[in-house]
Amino acid sequence: MAKLKNNNKRKQNKINIKTNNSASRVYSAGTRKKVKEDIVSKASQKRSSKASAESKPYKVIPLGGLNEIGKNCTLVEYNDEILIIDCGFAFPEYEMFGIDIVIPDFTYLKENSEKIKGLIITHGHEDHIGGIPYLLRELNVPVYASPLAMGLIDHKLEENGLWCERHVIRAGDIFNVGSFRVEAIQTNHSIADSVAYSIRFPGGHIVHTGDFKVDYAPLDGKVIDLRRFAQLGDDGVDLLLCDSTNVMRSGYTPSEAVVRKSIDEIFDNTDKRIIIATFSSNVHRIKYFMEASMKHNRCIAVSGKSMEKVLSLARELGYLNNIPDSLFIKIGDIRNVPDRSLTILTTGSQGEPMSALTRMAYDQHKSVKLKKNDVVVFSSSPIPGNEKVISQVVNRLYEKDVKVVLANAMDVHVSGHASSEELKLIHTLIHPRFFMPVHGEHRHLVEHSVLAQSLGQHEGNIFIMNNGDALCVNGRKANAVREYTSGEDVMVDGYGVGDIGNAVLRERKNLSQSGLVTIAVALDTATGSLMAVPEMRTIGLVYEQEHKEFLDEALSIVYNTIGKSAEAGNLDEQSLSKAIKSDMKSFIYKTTKRSPVIIPIILYV
Amino acid sequence: MAKLKNNNKRKQNKINIKTNNSASRVYSAGTRKKVKEDIVSKASQKRSSKASAESKPYKVIPLGGLNEIGKNCTLVEYNDEILIIDCGFAFPEYEMFGIDIVIPDFTYLKENSEKIKGLIITHGHEDHIGGIPYLLRELNVPVYASPLAMGLIDHKLEENGLWCERHVIRAGDIFNVGSFRVEAIQTNHSIADSVAYSIRFPGGHIVHTGDFKVDYAPLDGKVIDLRRFAQLGDDGVDLLLCDSTNVMRSGYTPSEAVVRKSIDEIFDNTDKRIIIATFSSNVHRIKYFMEASMKHNRCIAVSGKSMEKVLSLARELGYLNNIPDSLFIKIGDIRNVPDRSLTILTTGSQGEPMSALTRMAYDQHKSVKLKKNDVVVFSSSPIPGNEKVISQVVNRLYEKDVKVVLANAMDVHVSGHASSEELKLIHTLIHPRFFMPVHGEHRHLVEHSVLAQSLGQHEGNIFIMNNGDALCVNGRKANAVREYTSGEDVMVDGYGVGDIGNAVLRERKNLSQSGLVTIAVALDTATGSLMAVPEMRTIGLVYEQEHKEFLDEALSIVYNTIGKSAEAGNLDEQSLSKAIKSDMKSFIYKTTKRSPVIIPIILYV
Repeated sequence: MAKLKNNNKRKQNKINIKTNNSASRVYSAGTRKKVKEDIVSKASQKRSSKASAESKPYKVIPLGGLNEIGKNCTLVEYNDEILIIDCGFAFPEYEMFGIDIVIPDFTYLKENSEKIKGLIITHGHEDHIGGIPYLLRELNVPVYASPLAMGLIDHKLEENGLWCERHVIRAGDIFNVGSFRVEAIQTNHSIADSVAYSIRFPGGHIVHTGDFKVDYAPLDGKVIDLRRFAQLGDDGVDLLLCDSTNVMRSGYTPSEAVVRKSIDEIFDNTDKRIIIATFSSNVHRIKYFMEASMKHNRCIAVSGKSMEKVLSLARELGYLNNIPDSLFIKIGDIRNVPDRSLTILTTGSQGEPMSALTRMAYDQHKSVKLKKNDVVVFSSSPIPGNEKVISQVVNRLYEKDVKVVLANAMDVHVSGHASSEELKLIHTLIHPRFFMPVHGEHRHLVEHSVLAQSLGQHEGNIFIMNNGDALCVNGRKANAVREYTSGEDVMVDGYGVGDIGNAVLRERKNLSQSGLVTIAVALDTATGSLMAVPEMRTIGLVYEQEHKEFLDEALSIVYNTIGKSAEAGNLDEQSLSKAIKSDMKSFIYKTTKRSPVIIPIILYV
Repeated sequence: MAKLKNNNKRKQNKINIKTNNSASRVYSAGTRKKVKEDIVSKASQKRSSKASAESKPYKVIPLGGLNEIGKNCTLVEYNDEILIIDCGFAFPEYEMFGIDIVIPDFTYLKENSEKIKGLIITHGHEDHIGGIPYLLRELNVPVYASPLAMGLIDHKLEENGLWCERHVIRAGDIFNVGSFRVEAIQTNHSIADSVAYSIRFPGGHIVHTGDFKVDYAPLDGKVIDLRRFAQLGDDGVDLLLCDSTNVMRSGYTPSEAVVRKSIDEIFDNTDKRIIIATFSSNVHRIKYFMEASMKHNRCIAVSGKSMEKVLSLARELGYLNNIPDSLFIKIGDIRNVPDRSLTILTTGSQGEPMSALTRMAYDQHKSVKLKKNDVVVFSSSPIPGNEKVISQVVNRLYEKDVKVVLANAMDVHVSGHASSEELKLIHTLIHPRFFMPVHGEHRHLVEHSVLAQSLGQHEGNIFIMNNGDALCVNGRKANAVREYTSGEDVMVDGYGVGDIGNAVLRERKNLSQSGLVTIAVALDTATGSLMAVPEMRTIGLVYEQEHKEFLDEALSIVYNTIGKSAEAGNLDEQSLSKAIKSDMKSFIYKTTKRSPVIIPIILYV
């Protein structure tokens, strides 16, 4: 009876969806569905109707994205099949000197490669797709992603000479990945084509929100599919994995419509050049900048590689359909355009040293020389850790007498993540049995747990996990297995993936603090007598030219040490190195209060 | 007539002040005044009555605090006399590897030492007093400071084995420093005893606000002396130097009373331990934490050297008069106290690695083991650049299941700097002829100029200066002389003051990114033949143990290079070093995509 009732509901929903399709706000769930009757019947198994004897256990294993912002990657393992959700990278943490990026540890996947059925992508941000080339170098995995995300992945694969089985999916699609029945659900986020996933299999039903917010007035009109979330909740969800990034912000995250208003105000009130720096992947927002430019008879020049790349992709994919090519001019041709008729779209909103905006600020941009009263808009907020470098760029811009518009003074940016009231909405719609907060530092995960408890979720059914832990779910029971596999950071430095460990980072840190001293000594193997003047070098310790006296004194210490060691008969490499290191260390600390790395090198000739 | 009228006003004010003295809110201007009639008469010279022929030119030379937050130091030079206002240090900027602090360049002061009459201090924060030991090592300068600032300076001098002529001053005092007639005016800030200065001399009248806010309900009841500011404005002020830190915040900075309310709420609602991290110099706020503890029958333990130091000083100076000694217990004795009866005051609100709170978070504190539901309050906001390390500490605290209270969730901290509306108030009261925004990054100085213009200040009378520039004022005329003297950063690293320049910093940065490789080679001076196996070391490049193959290959490159160079007859040090560097660089980049520092060392035996 329960089954039947649900089937009816499902059908009714499909009709509703079709009606909505023709309305101005498109609820994309329901478009291009490959729904089969057996799925619908599975989907409608109510949580209450599921006997625990029927269900088989499954594991959810986060490899990244917990206790950190970045490198999101989660595995669902059921019946010898693994489904991967997202595969991102993270930017290096504080004091990860010289590290380019950090990726998840794929050891578990390599050890269980035959189980992997596919990788489903929630959206095209680097912390969700950036790890893919590193994964595909090791393993052959079919990838399912929405058009924009897939376009961005394609670029990555091309750059790396890689290939994979590609499946372009859209919100509303339902598809099989092994035994997993996956449904992509429309969400809102700061990049187009973001989806959440409902993942059904005989063992259970998981919903993973991906990064999301609730935007009732998104620029593309595609509002998050709250009805589908409600239906899923009604069907019964065992486990919810939900974005925690903004859980500590109270209230609601403002809509992108707010940005639109501020941008209009800027365009209405200046006849100078407008230069907008934003995240290149926020295609809808960028499209709005273009529309505003059209309306104000401004043409557009684009500067910054990633911006050019994403915009050409966006055009290919049809996101910029009503924007005529004639609107664009080459960045090299902007001199021919009056100030009031020019918008420049650029990268560099995070103060990246080599980005277009930073080059403009430091007079190093080939085509753009900033002028008094140019309006520079930061349509972004600082990613934590970037505050200082952004400040430096902003101050340089002020020195150029440009007008700088920052998001804290005017609403030229809104977050892409749900604040606490939006999270409450999703929890209420889904009302899952178990909850695992994801995408957040430890504090975010804990506060997300507190939020869920405030809605009646039982603390024992909330699992705050670490990367590498496994949540084992068996019907109505779930338990966390700690350190099930490696959830370590894998650091990438140049071609090296995972070859840099903490020891090397410590060396780099030590070198960065006081530099180093090398002392090279040539000894006669037979007699132990000094065969050449010892050669001493310092790097990053003192300004050599001005410290001849210091170096002379240091050298005399070396002679002294060698003399003492010779007397004591300790001229073997280990003893002499140790003696030189120790004497030099105390001399340098005494004279300079610095502790450089000291490298004695002894050549026996 | 104008003179007479002003004299009357001044007298009336003095009476008012006395009346206020007995009231609950003490307006401290007027207490302990050494007013002499001649001063009053000079003070009352209206700007309008000053003929430009009468006045002599003077210079204002900022040595620090412009285009930066930190190392505030400004000189006033008139008639062969120099008055110094503040002498602070700055924390190292982004990528100043290994630098302890940054101080102003005192070259101009050393070159004009005979002119220096004294140093007046606005308040005891490090960015206003931290440079004093470095100044006093070079020059003998009398110092004028309020009691708390002087106590903190005394500590510094003692630590450094230094001495100076000390003058303890209080808000309301008027005193001579050379020909400068200086008046200290009560302000509000996040440290007790903060003052602004009015500086009069035959050539002009300058007001320097120091760091300030307008707090109508400060914890010590000493409201900023707005009436005195109004009188000074009425007397006529040539030049205003005004704090710009918070100019980009709209509205008013909240009162300290707000913090009191939040703290009460916390104390009212927990029976667990309360651990409060705050800036040790905010004596009034700390006193309130003590009063709240008393009220709730909690005793207090203090952890953290600077906190202990400042509190013992504050007690000596009478700031904690109504706090009984019996309230305090030693941090080692907290085990004997029930949770509901304990408050711990601590340092570490900025995530400093060795601070008490950080040690607690990382289980390294000798006496404090954090427990579930301990309440940890950050009564502070992150100093820009510290966001990441603070985050790390906060996440560790969450891992310990403590309740963390941050200033963005609850009003447990307010800024000590005036927001835009307060700045407008001061500008309106002072209405100076010339204005120099101080204490701020370039953007703050520019926005402060915009704010002044919005109040009718003429743009031509506003001077946005750089450290080392001089503002030359001659009656009704003023002009900026750019690069009048050195306004450079002087970096302190250990005992070295100013010996580290950009070249050394660049070396440290390079070392931090990919480490280094040393290659030591011993050659026969006569024949040029290799006398020993070349010795190769890497630090911070690769994990040596795991890269024997890499090192072997690198060594074979060295042999190859030496062979080639020998054939070409290029075995002199310069040629061979260059060849080894170049071959090694391309080999390493090709294999690892890293660019370490390469140090060839050639010993001729």
